[in-house]
Amino acid sequence: MTDKLLNSLRVKPGSTVEVSKHDTRATFGWDKDEAKAELQEVVARIDVLQERLYAEATRSVLLVIQAMDAAGKDGTVRGILSGLNPAGVSVTSFKAPGGRETQHDYLWRVHEVAPAKGTIGVFNRSHYEDVLVVRVRNFVPPAVWRKRYDQIVAFERLLHDEGTRVVKVFLNVSKDEQAQRFRDRVADPTKRWKFREGDLEDRKLWPQFMKAYDAALSKTSTAHAPWYVVPADRNWVRNLVVAKILLATLEDMDPQIPEPTIDPASIVIE
Amino acid sequence: MTDKLLNSLRVKPGSTVEVSKHDTRATFGWDKDEAKAELQEVVARIDVLQERLYAEATRSVLLVIQAMDAAGKDGTVRGILSGLNPAGVSVTSFKAPGGRETQHDYLWRVHEVAPAKGTIGVFNRSHYEDVLVVRVRNFVPPAVWRKRYDQIVAFERLLHDEGTRVVKVFLNVSKDEQAQRFRDRVADPTKRWKFREGDLEDRKLWPQFMKAYDAALSKTSTAHAPWYVVPADRNWVRNLVVAKILLATLEDMDPQIPEPTIDPASIVIE
Repeated sequence: MTDKLLNSLRVKPGSTVEVSKHDTRATFGWDKDEAKAELQEVVARIDVLQERLYAEATRSVLLVIQAMDAAGKDGTVRGILSGLNPAGVSVTSFKAPGGRETQHDYLWRVHEVAPAKGTIGVFNRSHYEDVLVVRVRNFVPPAVWRKRYDQIVAFERLLHDEGTRVVKVFLNVSKDEQAQRFRDRVADPTKRWKFREGDLEDRKLWPQFMKAYDAALSKTSTAHAPWYVVPADRNWVRNLVVAKILLATLEDMDPQIPEPTIDPASIVIE
Repeated sequence: MTDKLLNSLRVKPGSTVEVSKHDTRATFGWDKDEAKAELQEVVARIDVLQERLYAEATRSVLLVIQAMDAAGKDGTVRGILSGLNPAGVSVTSFKAPGGRETQHDYLWRVHEVAPAKGTIGVFNRSHYEDVLVVRVRNFVPPAVWRKRYDQIVAFERLLHDEGTRVVKVFLNVSKDEQAQRFRDRVADPTKRWKFREGDLEDRKLWPQFMKAYDAALSKTSTAHAPWYVVPADRNWVRNLVVAKILLATLEDMDPQIPEPTIDPASIVIE
C-alpha cells in the first residue's frame, strides 16, 4: 500500500512533471486522526532505524525539502523529526548565499554540510535554489543555470555512490492555500515575524516558479536521488507522506548494528 | 526551589571543587515517576523558549556536556533534546582530532561549530578534552596544557559577550556505576558496539581523570560560563537536573519574538 502510494508520487526518471496538475489537497482516503496516530508509529519506526544507522556509522541519508513559502518546510521538519535523537539529525536551512559562500561555486557550501556517516541530514531549501529562484530572477544567465541540472545530478550521484541516500520532496502547496496562510501569519502577531514582504514578490512570480520546479524535478529525478511531489495543502497529509518516504528510504537501506568484534568473556572490568 | 538546587550544584567562581566528594546518587527527594513527569513539563517549557530564541535570532545557547565513559552523555542529549525542533538544535560529538583539525590550535574546530544565532548548540565532549585526556595522557607537555585554562575562559568570554550563553555540565558518575554499565554493555549484543577496549584504559586512570576534572571545573567555572556537577548514577535524576539547568538558562535569557515591523493593514495578498 505504502509502496504503491510512494511510487505514485515519485517522479519517474526521464519523465516530465507538471506540478500544477498534481492534486494539492489529496488525502488518499486517510482520516485525519488516524493519520496523526499513524505518523507517531512511522516516526517510532524511523527512530529505531535511525539508531541502527548511527550505530552502523558507514552511511547517511540526505532529505532535501523544497517548496514555495508557507508550504510547510519548517512544519515538516518539526512534525517528523522532533522525537528523533538530535545527535543523529542535522538540519541546514539555506539562506541566500553571502560572504565566503559567494566566493565559491554554488555546490561548495552544500557539500560542506552534507550529512556525516551515521546521520540523517535535512536541507530546508538547498542547492535547488540555484535552479529555482536564481533562474526565475535571472541572478545568472541561462547559459549558467542550464548546466546546473547535470551538475546536480552528478553531485548527487557522488553522494549516493559514497554512501549517502538522497531523497527529495517538493511540498506542493496551492496558490490559494498559500494566500490563506500568508493572511493567517499577518493576522497573528506571534507569527507575523515569519512574514516578509519579499514573500509577496515571489508569489507574483508563481507561474515562473512552477515552471522552474517542473524543470528541476523533471531533469534531476533519478533512480539514485528521486523527487517526490507531496500534496501540501493539508499539513497532516504532508507530514505523513514525508515520514513514509523517509521510513521507506531507511527500510530499503536496512542499517545494521555492527557485529560485536569483542569476546565478552575476554573483558575484565575491575 | 529549583534556583536553590541549581545554585548548590554550580561551581562557584574561584572555588576549588573535588568531584569525587560529591554525591553521585543524590535524588533531592524526588520520586522517579514524578521526576519523569516533571521532565516532560520542563522540556515543554524549553520548547516554547527555544521557539522564541529561534524567532529572536540574535542570541544562542551552548551546552557543554563532559563526563567519563558511560556516564550518559548520549542519553542526556536524547532524553532532554528529543522533542525540540531539530532545526534549532545542533549536536556536535567531538572525537579525537584528526586531519585538518590537527593543523590548527585546539579551539579552531570548536569555534567553527559554535551555535548559530537563534539555536541551541550541544557539545558532547568539547574543548575540555584538551585539558582532560590530553593532560592525563601527556599528549602535550604541562607547559602547554597549563595555559589552556585561561585560554578557554577567554574564549568562552568572547562567546558570551557576542551573544552565546555558555553553560557546562559534568555528569558525575561513580566508578562502581561505570563498572556496572560497562558490564551491561558487554553482556548485551545490541549494545556491545558502544563498548571499546580503550574505555578500560581510561578507567584505569580514574584518579588522574578526577584530578583533571577538578582542575578544569575549578579553573574555568565563571559567572559567564558556569560549571554544574550533576549526579549521574541515576539517569532520571541526571536528565531532570540538566533539563532544569537548560531551562533556567533560557528563562534568564528571556528571548522575545520580534516586534512586528509591518502593518498588517498595508499587506495585500492577491
